[in-house]
Amino acid sequence: MNAIDQIVLTALSDIPSVGPGDDITTIVVTALERTSIVLEPGDVIVITHKIVSKAEDRYVDLEEIIPSEYARCLADEVGKDPRLVEVILSESNEVVRKNKGILVTEHRLGFVVANAGVDSSNIDHIEGLSRVLLLPTDPDCICSEIRNRIQTEAGVCVGIIINDSHGRAWRNGTVGLALGSSGIPALLDLRGCPDIFGADLKTTQVGLADEIAAAASLLMGQGNEMRPVVHVRGLPYPLSEGKASDLLRNKQEDLFR
Amino acid sequence: MNAIDQIVLTALSDIPSVGPGDDITTIVVTALERTSIVLEPGDVIVITHKIVSKAEDRYVDLEEIIPSEYARCLADEVGKDPRLVEVILSESNEVVRKNKGILVTEHRLGFVVANAGVDSSNIDHIEGLSRVLLLPTDPDCICSEIRNRIQTEAGVCVGIIINDSHGRAWRNGTVGLALGSSGIPALLDLRGCPDIFGADLKTTQVGLADEIAAAASLLMGQGNEMRPVVHVRGLPYPLSEGKASDLLRNKQEDLFR
Repeated sequence: MNAIDQIVLTALSDIPSVGPGDDITTIVVTALERTSIVLEPGDVIVITHKIVSKAEDRYVDLEEIIPSEYARCLADEVGKDPRLVEVILSESNEVVRKNKGILVTEHRLGFVVANAGVDSSNIDHIEGLSRVLLLPTDPDCICSEIRNRIQTEAGVCVGIIINDSHGRAWRNGTVGLALGSSGIPALLDLRGCPDIFGADLKTTQVGLADEIAAAASLLMGQGNEMRPVVHVRGLPYPLSEGKASDLLRNKQEDLFR
Repeated sequence: MNAIDQIVLTALSDIPSVGPGDDITTIVVTALERTSIVLEPGDVIVITHKIVSKAEDRYVDLEEIIPSEYARCLADEVGKDPRLVEVILSESNEVVRKNKGILVTEHRLGFVVANAGVDSSNIDHIEGLSRVLLLPTDPDCICSEIRNRIQTEAGVCVGIIINDSHGRAWRNGTVGLALGSSGIPALLDLRGCPDIFGADLKTTQVGLADEIAAAASLLMGQGNEMRPVVHVRGLPYPLSEGKASDLLRNKQEDLFR
C-alpha cells in the first residue's frame, strides 16, 4: 500500500472538559501523547471551534444583555429571544436573510452563517443562567499560534484547522468547514494542472481545508461524543501557507447574497 | 484504540480507465480484492460520478448539437459555447443564476450546480471531436443497485456513495458532495439526542453523506490522480436507509435561490 493512498483520521482520547483560560496547545499535545500519536511532518490537527471559544471565555450571559430597539423588532420578526438577537447582531456585519425561526448573517469574520454562529448547545448552563457561546475571536490567527507552538515544542511542522458545522444554501444538513486554518493550502489552486488525459484543468479550485474539516466532523459528532480534536495523516498534498479566510468569497463576486 | 475513534479512507489500487458498458460493481469488487480489502458490515464505498457516467455512456458530442434560439441568446450572455449551453439546459429544470462565464442551474435531479454538472475535463477527446460528459442518470438508484449486488455477491451490507465536487454559495473552492447514496443515513437527524451536558440538541441535522463524500474527495483529487474509488471504514454511525436526494432542500424552503 502506497502511503499516499490512505488517509487516517483519529479522534484524540479523553480530552477533558475545556474552560476559560485553558491552553489549547497543551491540551492537544497532551492528548496526542495519551493517544500514542507521534506527529509527523504533513499531519493536520483539526480542533472544534467550541473548545477554542470556551478556552477564550467567549461566553455571554443573556441576562446581562439589553437589546436595542432594532434587535427587539428583528427578534419579533424571526421569533427569537431579543437578547440573543442583540448578541447575534453584535457579532455580525449585516443580516443576509431572515424568516420565521431563521436569521442568517455575515459574521464579522466574513462568513455567512445562521445566528452568527452563536450557539447554546454543549454549554454548561449553570442553574439560573442563560449562557451562549460566541465563535473564537480570530480563528486563522489562533491556528497560526498553535501551529507555531507545536513547531517550537515538538519540532514538527503540521497544519491546524479550527472547524465548525454550518448550514448551506440549497442543501439540508450541516457540514464541517474550516473557520480557521494555518499551514494548509486552504484553497487549493489546481488550475493549469493536467487532467488524466493531459488537458489543462480550467477552473478547479478545491476548498481543501473545508474538505478536511468535514472529514474530521465525521468523528467529532455534534452531541455528547466528546471528541473535539482529530488528527489527520496521509493527505496527498504538501502543506504550505494559506488560511481559511482565503475560502471566503468576495461579496461583490457572490451571486447568492 | 477504540475502533470507533478512527476512520480510515483507502483509495483502491490500479482501477483501469472506464468506458461505456463497463460494470462498476465488478470494477469495485475487483479493485477491493487487488487492494486486499475484505469488506466488513458498515463499510462505505465512495465512487466518483465520472466513472459512473462513463460506464453509462453519458457522453455528448457537441458537434451533433443544434442550439435553440434561447440557448444561443443565453450563450451570448454568459460567454459560453451555444451547443454546450443547449446541453446544460437539456439537463436542467431552470436557470438559477447567470453572469459572464457563470451559468448555475437546478439540475433535473434537483441540486443547484454550475453548468448542470456537464464536464469536459478528464474526458478522452478523440481528435476532431468535442465531447462532454453528463452526470449519471439516477445516482441514488445506481447506488442502490451497486449496494444490492455487493450484498448478494459478497454477502456484506455496505453503504454506497457517488460523489462529485461542486461550488458553493459564499465560499471559494469546490468540495465533494453526495450525488447519490444508498444504505447511509445521508441526512442524519440528531434532533432530540443529548448534548454533552444532557440538554436536547435542538436543530442538528447533519449532511452525513456529504461529509463522507468530501472526505473521499481528499484522496480522489481532481486531476490525473486516477483514484476514482475510495473505501471508508470506521464511521461512528450505524448504516441505515436514506438517500442523497434527502439532502436536497425543498425549493420553497430555500432562501438562497
